Amino acid sequence: MGFGIISVSGKTMKLVSLGVLKLQKTDDHPLKLKYIFEKSIALIDEFHPDELSIEAPFFGKNVQSMLKLGRAQGVAMAAALSRSIPIFEYSPRKIKQSITGKGSASKEQVASMLFHLLSMKEAPEQLDATDGLAVAVCHFFQKGNTGTEKKFTGWKSYLSANPERLG
Amino acid sequence: MGFGIISVSGKTMKLVSLGVLKLQKTDDHPLKLKYIFEKSIALIDEFHPDELSIEAPFFGKNVQSMLKLGRAQGVAMAAALSRSIPIFEYSPRKIKQSITGKGSASKEQVASMLFHLLSMKEAPEQLDATDGLAVAVCHFFQKGNTGTEKKFTGWKSYLSANPERLG
Repeated sequence: MGFGIISVSGKTMKLVSLGVLKLQKTDDHPLKLKYIFEKSIALIDEFHPDELSIEAPFFGKNVQSMLKLGRAQGVAMAAALSRSIPIFEYSPRKIKQSITGKGSASKEQVASMLFHLLSMKEAPEQLDATDGLAVAVCHFFQKGNTGTEKKFTGWKSYLSANPERLG
Repeated sequence: MGFGIISVSGKTMKLVSLGVLKLQKTDDHPLKLKYIFEKSIALIDEFHPDELSIEAPFFGKNVQSMLKLGRAQGVAMAAALSRSIPIFEYSPRKIKQSITGKGSASKEQVASMLFHLLSMKEAPEQLDATDGLAVAVCHFFQKGNTGTEKKFTGWKSYLSANPERLG
């Protein structure tokens, strides 16, 4: 389970942290979920993210692994919900598309594009870590932080769109 | 998503509450999860349960519905984890087996056995509500609260098993 945290200032994004939750080798499923929940809460309380983005996988090996994955995502989402952080989700295809321009890009292609976009010096030990980062960067792009178009142009345009607020 | 809450005093169990989380008809999946999380927290804070039991489904229609189910269970489990409530899980077969003596019992057979065991006067509106109750009752039985055998026999037997505590 990889995670990536970016900070956004204007149209610029910066890597804050990325890593992997190393799950203990145990068959005690509730114990694993407890670890994911506590680790997610700890990350939120350390970095105070404004938003959480998560990958919505569409292909799983089998229904049992999808149930486990769903529960793992569920507790991570609940960690965000418990801190009133809004959640966004993107399909794997959308994530690859928005980062590399190609929905069928390989994990390695996504990773090398992320290194470029975030001016990273060295590759993370595990590729799973870039998975989490990829969703965050995809969300950044989806919010209109790309090209010249601006979604939010500040107080001045807000006033011209909502003249009654001037009174 | 059904839930059932029982209180246990010695070898006797009593129905405290049962019901169904009515999910809004919305495609906004995170919003549904938010509702399940908040409702679960509200139930925990109202009834202060000591333990949570959950059904571990083994057959799903498809991987997508299993992912959604997993996430829904995940946020409910996180609600328990956030209050340090231990979680137990049982397979559908185990639940039916422990309540009716037959792992292949129908939903209706399980429900009518629950009515009998808990001396319920009237059937709940939705059978889903008895699903949640069934897991709770299964957990009660699994903890050894059935027949004449006692798992825990009090301070006296604890002392005879742990004589060093006498010193």
